[in-house]
Amino acid sequence: MKIGILGAGQLARMLALAGHPLGLETVCFTELAMVPAACCAKLVVGRFDDQSALQHFAQQVDVITFENENIDVNVVEFLSGYCPVYPTSAALALTQDRLLEKQLLQQLEIPVGRCCAIHSLAELEKNSAAFNHDAILKTRRFGYDGKGQWRIRSLDDLAKIKSADLQEPLILEEFIPFDEEVSMIAVRSLQGQIKFYPLTKNVHHQGILKISVAPANSPLENLARDYMARLLTHFNYVGVLAIEFFCKGEQLLANEIAPRVHNSGHWTQNGAVTSQFENHMRAMAQLPLGETTLLAKTAMFNCIGSEPLMTDVLQIPYTHYHHYGKEARALRKLAHINLTYQDDQQFERGYQQLIDLLA
Amino acid sequence: MKIGILGAGQLARMLALAGHPLGLETVCFTELAMVPAACCAKLVVGRFDDQSALQHFAQQVDVITFENENIDVNVVEFLSGYCPVYPTSAALALTQDRLLEKQLLQQLEIPVGRCCAIHSLAELEKNSAAFNHDAILKTRRFGYDGKGQWRIRSLDDLAKIKSADLQEPLILEEFIPFDEEVSMIAVRSLQGQIKFYPLTKNVHHQGILKISVAPANSPLENLARDYMARLLTHFNYVGVLAIEFFCKGEQLLANEIAPRVHNSGHWTQNGAVTSQFENHMRAMAQLPLGETTLLAKTAMFNCIGSEPLMTDVLQIPYTHYHHYGKEARALRKLAHINLTYQDDQQFERGYQQLIDLLA
Repeated sequence: MKIGILGAGQLARMLALAGHPLGLETVCFTELAMVPAACCAKLVVGRFDDQSALQHFAQQVDVITFENENIDVNVVEFLSGYCPVYPTSAALALTQDRLLEKQLLQQLEIPVGRCCAIHSLAELEKNSAAFNHDAILKTRRFGYDGKGQWRIRSLDDLAKIKSADLQEPLILEEFIPFDEEVSMIAVRSLQGQIKFYPLTKNVHHQGILKISVAPANSPLENLARDYMARLLTHFNYVGVLAIEFFCKGEQLLANEIAPRVHNSGHWTQNGAVTSQFENHMRAMAQLPLGETTLLAKTAMFNCIGSEPLMTDVLQIPYTHYHHYGKEARALRKLAHINLTYQDDQQFERGYQQLIDLLA
Repeated sequence: MKIGILGAGQLARMLALAGHPLGLETVCFTELAMVPAACCAKLVVGRFDDQSALQHFAQQVDVITFENENIDVNVVEFLSGYCPVYPTSAALALTQDRLLEKQLLQQLEIPVGRCCAIHSLAELEKNSAAFNHDAILKTRRFGYDGKGQWRIRSLDDLAKIKSADLQEPLILEEFIPFDEEVSMIAVRSLQGQIKFYPLTKNVHHQGILKISVAPANSPLENLARDYMARLLTHFNYVGVLAIEFFCKGEQLLANEIAPRVHNSGHWTQNGAVTSQFENHMRAMAQLPLGETTLLAKTAMFNCIGSEPLMTDVLQIPYTHYHHYGKEARALRKLAHINLTYQDDQQFERGYQQLIDLLA
């Protein structure tokens, strides 16, 4: 069976690697030939606005998925004419727009922080004041890793926002002074079977995920599963879905949805019975889903902008390295490291060694 | 870094898959282009007696290893002129000959069953009688999965052995009425660091490995480690080595050595902190070795001659499928299934379901 993936970055690479043991071949549609997935997947190189290239791609695969939600929905709809695409364009379209996403969450009674659409400076000023000038202005579309975001801490910060920035659709979100950030990752099959991974605790730095630790051991685990199930069922979703939440007291506030395997689930490669990558591939191939149980407490560290010496990492016991094969560039995710737990003391020691190494 | 592998079968495939997360690219030297490793490794297609093809291969890799001990030692010695080959030709030459292997084991004071070289029918008759006609006649070289073996249970069985069979170098081994078969797998780095996997219990059927279960929970674990350490140190070995033992009372009798990743270590992909494949690649790349600790009790089932429906397998909880991408043929290993333990009852149920499914 052949699985098509739109994109050929590190997520496609790790999906393709997880597919081979299941006899699933991966074909990636990509605009560039020098890509992380090239080592273990076939590539169809073409432009996303070239329908004949897309058709050529669709005709050689049995099902299509994507590794990035910033794809033109029209592309997904066009490809759906040739073979199934999971997740569907409905889920994709919705998660591409922060405002529509927040509105759906509200409709499904999943709590979110206060927010509103911004079309003008006057609207920004008025709503920023309503949030006590403690807010984040975000582009509604195509933001990732903190890009397209302006943190507002005072009235003065509004002056930094240029009128050109206000030309695109924006959303203003009140700043949430959260206790911690967690994410819930789950997978759903075409038949409606759902498997939840343990809730994961995340640490961000400058808008980019830096560390994830599973399990979060949070009393909010069941609440997060409940919210996740509502979303998966609403979309008739197939594949892996991630929701990032802010925890505040006994409340979970949904912050973002990602309709794909997610960075905060990379720990599952070494810490769960079945990784998120294998489970996404199983869902695509209509194979029974694998257990999402924890094998061992695991911390995932992103290597951002540069990579440490692999020898320095692997001499720390119980570490695993996951290299992406990308050229180093500032703020770029180049690899991640998983540290699997054996005992608490060893885990803490390894955790601190990795913090120091990656500082 | 580029790792060269002689051969491109399932072992090369699983080595290559384990290499990508470490940023290690694999190049396989193979006589055929349609091979299991083709999905995730580069291939150099050529004949093993073509020195210019071998040279072309050696010049594009940093280190060379092999997935099969039935390679011409001259090939390995030729390649060693271009880049390091691990394990070395000395270890390879020795494990290619059952008699030399047994003699080395005796020299290192690792117990083995009684055996002797056979050059003629007269010698066969005499020694078979000494073993009470309860023995196995084996070719000294190029045997695998029970091929090149004749079981002798009575004087009559000698009549079945043709004079043509006696033309090649043979060894007669007394039959060991063992309690169980186990294997010890370990990995050694160039710097001499050794990591042992838990002793694994094996079940063979018609000379082919059918099931492995780890851990064997054997009181002979430390003895097996001691024997393994003697061999690794003797060879100044680099990479993964496997020893198959017969257990008889409180004794371990070494039966076979394999200078490579081994079928009885496939459970490590899902049941150990670091798989034998990853550790062999780490050893080749001079990276620190990974922990060999058990994550969960695991049973490995070989799919021989035919494959079950993957859906039937994966609907049994806690199973993982490892497909090799080979054409089905009688007695051919086509895939294996790992069942990871979560609790005893669940393990026993899954074990029985797999036995029934593969029957």
